[in-house]
Amino acid sequence: MEPTPALPRVVIIGAGFGGLAAAQALARQPVALTVIDRRNHHLFQPLLYQVATAGLSPADIATPIRSQFRGRDHVRVLMAEVTGIDLAARRVLTTAEPVPYDTLVLATGAQDAYFGHPEWERFAPGLKTVEDAVAIRRRILLAFEHAEAEPDADRQCRLLTFVVVGGGPTGVELAGAIVELARVALARDFRRIDPRSARVVLVEAGPRVLATFPQALSDAAAQGLRDLGVELRTGAAVTACDAEGVVVGSDRIAAATVLWAAGVRASPAAAWLDVPADRAGRVVVGPDLTVAGHPEVFVIGDTAHAEGAEGRPLPGVAPVAKQQGEYVARAIAARRSGATPAPFRYRDLGSLATIGRGRAVADFGWIRLTGRIAWLLWGIVHIAFLIGFRNRIVVLLDWLWAYVTFRRGARLITMDRAGGEETPASAAEA
Amino acid sequence: MEPTPALPRVVIIGAGFGGLAAAQALARQPVALTVIDRRNHHLFQPLLYQVATAGLSPADIATPIRSQFRGRDHVRVLMAEVTGIDLAARRVLTTAEPVPYDTLVLATGAQDAYFGHPEWERFAPGLKTVEDAVAIRRRILLAFEHAEAEPDADRQCRLLTFVVVGGGPTGVELAGAIVELARVALARDFRRIDPRSARVVLVEAGPRVLATFPQALSDAAAQGLRDLGVELRTGAAVTACDAEGVVVGSDRIAAATVLWAAGVRASPAAAWLDVPADRAGRVVVGPDLTVAGHPEVFVIGDTAHAEGAEGRPLPGVAPVAKQQGEYVARAIAARRSGATPAPFRYRDLGSLATIGRGRAVADFGWIRLTGRIAWLLWGIVHIAFLIGFRNRIVVLLDWLWAYVTFRRGARLITMDRAGGEETPASAAEA
Repeated sequence: MEPTPALPRVVIIGAGFGGLAAAQALARQPVALTVIDRRNHHLFQPLLYQVATAGLSPADIATPIRSQFRGRDHVRVLMAEVTGIDLAARRVLTTAEPVPYDTLVLATGAQDAYFGHPEWERFAPGLKTVEDAVAIRRRILLAFEHAEAEPDADRQCRLLTFVVVGGGPTGVELAGAIVELARVALARDFRRIDPRSARVVLVEAGPRVLATFPQALSDAAAQGLRDLGVELRTGAAVTACDAEGVVVGSDRIAAATVLWAAGVRASPAAAWLDVPADRAGRVVVGPDLTVAGHPEVFVIGDTAHAEGAEGRPLPGVAPVAKQQGEYVARAIAARRSGATPAPFRYRDLGSLATIGRGRAVADFGWIRLTGRIAWLLWGIVHIAFLIGFRNRIVVLLDWLWAYVTFRRGARLITMDRAGGEETPASAAEA
Repeated sequence: MEPTPALPRVVIIGAGFGGLAAAQALARQPVALTVIDRRNHHLFQPLLYQVATAGLSPADIATPIRSQFRGRDHVRVLMAEVTGIDLAARRVLTTAEPVPYDTLVLATGAQDAYFGHPEWERFAPGLKTVEDAVAIRRRILLAFEHAEAEPDADRQCRLLTFVVVGGGPTGVELAGAIVELARVALARDFRRIDPRSARVVLVEAGPRVLATFPQALSDAAAQGLRDLGVELRTGAAVTACDAEGVVVGSDRIAAATVLWAAGVRASPAAAWLDVPADRAGRVVVGPDLTVAGHPEVFVIGDTAHAEGAEGRPLPGVAPVAKQQGEYVARAIAARRSGATPAPFRYRDLGSLATIGRGRAVADFGWIRLTGRIAWLLWGIVHIAFLIGFRNRIVVLLDWLWAYVTFRRGARLITMDRAGGEETPASAAEA
């Protein structure tokens, strides 16, 4: 008997939508697969805003990465931080051990971008991780608690003002969820304040919200937000952001809670690889999603600048990342059998965004939907794409419960380790 | 029309089992009620160990205090920290405003006690709050992750050693849940380590676990723990505790994770009142649960030293606190009608403790149960006493799911605010 040739080593960095899709497809191939992530869980980011607004628990939208590969002995999961990539030696450097590869898949995602104002981050947190969501939930719920205990009318007003910066899907969803939290779930729970008087302002620098959707759907979303009670400021950029609130154009809005959903920047993969990046920090890749001169290095998802049909970069959305992850697995299989993989082509299956109870927009190209049908579709699609039977059932039940009772299932303020009772102001100054 | 006489002002500090029971009963009486708590939620502590061992999400066992009094305009909830009590002026001093009272109910619970070794707390965290549970969950899950990444055999062994100090119900439940997590839920998810080789040690200074139960049930619990794979050390006190592990008697056990369930000390209520406390810091109260010389001040639950039938102090368990809370509401009503309340009498309805899947002990005095029947009873009682329909359904579903799949629903490692990847050692040193 001849010895079995060693399996080709594939290393995937990042278990977001792209990395996990690649890993799940590669787990079925004869490769020695290592998945590296600094988290122990895959996070279903599209529903993270519901954690931030007390609707869902973090565990309901998170899945342990390991449990996806239970019993698959040729798949290894390593929880570690990547510190660099040695392209010449083909090794990933990590806080644990160096991990050698034959093929590398970079799928490290993106982080919030503050457009040259990193100092705004502490005043206007973004929504990327479970910790972000729990911190934002704390900030929002504490604002109401502190307003209830606040005798001064001006400060009470500032505590009850919420500004969301960025009119993309996350910003729209956050603003809608906050205004619904205030006007419905919390409405009858306070004595000195009326949560229904809370002011929620959505600021968008461009001319319209949901700019990637057709104009008619943007208009429908804007109308839906206004109907819910969101104050819309389009064509208005944030010019300052501090502990007191934000300046939009030349107006100062005193707000205890400012949330950032205005843009992202790719993870530092380009720096690790020492290759050119676009303005958003994304690694420029070829039609087969590899880096020029390094056919063994794939970059996918929010980390990659891949060109779509009309030469425009593909958007940083989950379907792009997932299709790219699946493509990489196919490309690796093709190469193994000696073939050259066909270029990646993105199939746009449509876009969905929700505004609030019974309100959403859906764009499938051939058909555009708004209102209750779009909302139901949005719900079905998100349940379907959640990972794991348990999470699907729990999220579905929490939605049904919230739909029937108008309540939120996770109105929980948890403190940080220091354990102190944090005010929104002190959090901002921390 | 004559003006309505002002309602008598009742202030309850603490919305644990005792405070919430009192508040719910008083909310139906013609009193102006204020409930003060530093948290926004009531926590169902008996299931907290399941949050710590990745079975349940925090929100599943927490209920917003406010939502219990929705629409009841004469009940106010104030989220604030109590800083003192002005007995002469009858005012509670808080981090928000001072709150005047005619009748005060102190139900501030207890905290972990380290028997003169407060420095052990950072090495051996206790389990009292949601934050504690999430931190312990992180510590336990990270221990397995770090063991998987650890090449050194000794360090791997230390990472896979878990010591629980204290053989009461919490210690027994924690030890059982950790060993089941390791041997079942995580068993096939790692490649370099075998989670089934994890060592779980339960240390109890007294001669037996579950010392408040009859000897036969203690023996059954001990056998159940051994069957699961827990190493039992009874009659052995912890004499040292540091970043490397613990010393039990004269044996050093190298353990990355040490958890404390060995005893509690009452909250500082006695100091606020400047009245005598017992050795556990509890305020000594009379037969009507009031403080000597202050018939307007009730102290209940873990904060109180109230004598039971045989002159022994009542145990610090939820049923005592709840019955005392209900008693206080009845006593206040009796006084309003000019009557003298009868002394408080505790009705012991029995005790339950669970060891693991299909294993529990139940003591109802007239009947003692072990095994599957006790376990089912334990589950039914805990679901029944959870607050809120949504939490009951979610916990029930998560249990059914775990029962069928042998998995855990909340295997989520979340970091503290600093965001760094924490090692068990660095956490201990933080």
